[in-house]
Amino acid sequence: MINERMYQLGSQPNFIRKQFAYGLQRKAEIGEENVFDYSIGNPSIPAPPAVRARIEELLEEPPEQLHAYTMSPGLQSARQAVADNLRERFGIEATFNQVYLTAGATAALYITVAAITHPGDEVIVNAPYFAEYKVMIESAECTCVEVPMRESDFQLDIDALRQAINEKTAAVVINSPNNPVGCVYTQQNIEELAALLEEKEAELGHPIYLISDEPYREITYGVDVPFTANFYTDTIVCYSWAKSLSLPGERIGYVYVSDRIANAAEVSAAVAGAGRALGFICAPVMFQRVIETCIGEPTNVEAYRQNREILTSMLDELGYEYIQPDGAFYLWVKALEEDSLAFNEKAKEHELLLVPAECFGGHGWARASYCISADVIRNSRKAWAALKADYE
Amino acid sequence: MINERMYQLGSQPNFIRKQFAYGLQRKAEIGEENVFDYSIGNPSIPAPPAVRARIEELLEEPPEQLHAYTMSPGLQSARQAVADNLRERFGIEATFNQVYLTAGATAALYITVAAITHPGDEVIVNAPYFAEYKVMIESAECTCVEVPMRESDFQLDIDALRQAINEKTAAVVINSPNNPVGCVYTQQNIEELAALLEEKEAELGHPIYLISDEPYREITYGVDVPFTANFYTDTIVCYSWAKSLSLPGERIGYVYVSDRIANAAEVSAAVAGAGRALGFICAPVMFQRVIETCIGEPTNVEAYRQNREILTSMLDELGYEYIQPDGAFYLWVKALEEDSLAFNEKAKEHELLLVPAECFGGHGWARASYCISADVIRNSRKAWAALKADYE
Repeated sequence: MINERMYQLGSQPNFIRKQFAYGLQRKAEIGEENVFDYSIGNPSIPAPPAVRARIEELLEEPPEQLHAYTMSPGLQSARQAVADNLRERFGIEATFNQVYLTAGATAALYITVAAITHPGDEVIVNAPYFAEYKVMIESAECTCVEVPMRESDFQLDIDALRQAINEKTAAVVINSPNNPVGCVYTQQNIEELAALLEEKEAELGHPIYLISDEPYREITYGVDVPFTANFYTDTIVCYSWAKSLSLPGERIGYVYVSDRIANAAEVSAAVAGAGRALGFICAPVMFQRVIETCIGEPTNVEAYRQNREILTSMLDELGYEYIQPDGAFYLWVKALEEDSLAFNEKAKEHELLLVPAECFGGHGWARASYCISADVIRNSRKAWAALKADYE
Repeated sequence: MINERMYQLGSQPNFIRKQFAYGLQRKAEIGEENVFDYSIGNPSIPAPPAVRARIEELLEEPPEQLHAYTMSPGLQSARQAVADNLRERFGIEATFNQVYLTAGATAALYITVAAITHPGDEVIVNAPYFAEYKVMIESAECTCVEVPMRESDFQLDIDALRQAINEKTAAVVINSPNNPVGCVYTQQNIEELAALLEEKEAELGHPIYLISDEPYREITYGVDVPFTANFYTDTIVCYSWAKSLSLPGERIGYVYVSDRIANAAEVSAAVAGAGRALGFICAPVMFQRVIETCIGEPTNVEAYRQNREILTSMLDELGYEYIQPDGAFYLWVKALEEDSLAFNEKAKEHELLLVPAECFGGHGWARASYCISADVIRNSRKAWAALKADYE
């Protein structure tokens, strides 16, 4: 008999996908220029030209060599490139042994959670959060514990985290720059978190891992993103080049187990074992090779910065309340009524497609992804204005 | 604390990898030409030129479109290409809805097992078998039940399977052409299996899925590989282009849920849900697009056929007993002593690297992968001869 949990997960497409599909349908019905789709977080800038150049170079190699299997954690040369990059940028003692290449950040997160949890453990997420975290945590037979961020400034709520941590807590997941809020946790906030976790580790007598999900690391607007492994020992970083190099469909990312972890080699062995146990072995090889040489390519943030300016100026003018985005390409806008699902439906009447906070374990807000064309943002003014008028 | 099962899996590399690493070390020590490495099943023929041509064509597309995410099951056009290919070749009513693209056959198998089992179920494998099946089945919290193939002809042992099937049996996994034996199950054998499973389904009152793992389908030497879905209703096919198009490192394959399954749409929903629950979403997109147009490329079996001739003639001359390979690129050779681990060590003394049957849940045999250069096979004659002499 089919597995009921899998059936439920497969037969209820997530809201964002539904919203996106609705957008495509409306575009077909009323014309592309009349639909303002802020639903999907897919990079809208092209991959840097170095990616194409690298692929063209690779195609000159004998195909049986180019397309061959690699060892499960990936090519040593590509893992070394990641370690070198982390060392140069963040001054840490990263080694290739602690890097496990994966088919995107999803795989990296699944592997990490499986490596450091046991059934019945609790894993804390900071709400609002990327909804698939819950699926991933439940797949490891752990409980997903939601701790709201401080709504005043959307920083980690250290006091609330203190309340939530107990003997079952195996890990805390953070995501900065954040999806869906666009906030970046300050160094002070990360230091407070580290102090709390150290205190709790000592009190409870077992490690509490900090899983730092960082696919938006390079997409920031004038703020620094502290490298968590420099502030807290038991850190595991999950990364993907989906956003920074605009390669989401190619599925390439990594797990980095901080070299500072006392038993780092053992944690890495558990990561490798989780890769094997979950079937995430040998990340797509052509893009392992792309990363080897393109890892230092700068991320083109300008288009997103411009979109952010257009959108925030417009919302300022119209009198919307929102969180000033410091990173990623999401804007977190206050819903104009308490029920953000109803607000989302209202927005749809004006062909304005957002994602309500409920999809991220939140309430009273909505996410606008501005990784779209500047023209769509400019043209959406009338929709935002009409939506505002509905509540006046 | 790290997960002990993951740690164990990660800190004990599998034997084949160890043997391969040993081979590399020996080559460095005594010269490449003096080591005869039959350990790894990595395709030795190049991908067809159409693959490179297709990638070059794709590189002309705007990168933000080329590298974009796809829906979780993959691009409809690529899934349609798979359905069309199955329809044309096997006369079945395949539809794209029943095709879920995956990052290789590993992902396909994990997804399938998760979709159709519950913790505590049993999944039957036919020994000898690809050892990672056991890891995968245990990851779904099921028991891996090993049923030996008939040693007389390495066909499925229908009587033994009948004994093994009970109310806990959720699925039977078959792999034809077979790794490690190189056998192909005959149509009669598949028909007998189908009759048994139908009988047991009726008796037990629940489906027993046939999971047909077929990455070697196109690598055969004058025999037909019956398409299981034509003989048994509750069939799910797992496939990869790793071998047929020599793309193992690119991680591209699929799950095909037979359209004949009574509740095929529900099984497919469970497959999609398992993809989500296990984190296998959106197979690497560039190779989805490669498959779209290269799926019909013929597999170049000639090099393997030639290797097979050289190797079998040599072993005939030297008086080895082996199973005549009908498919894949493996030869299953009888160990010259009961303990095939000891036999393997003896072979190593002559720089002949095999994989003992124990690595596949078997005993008394060894696997020789002949996806290597013909010269290595020719030059290995002295090693095979000396090994034989050790036992005379």
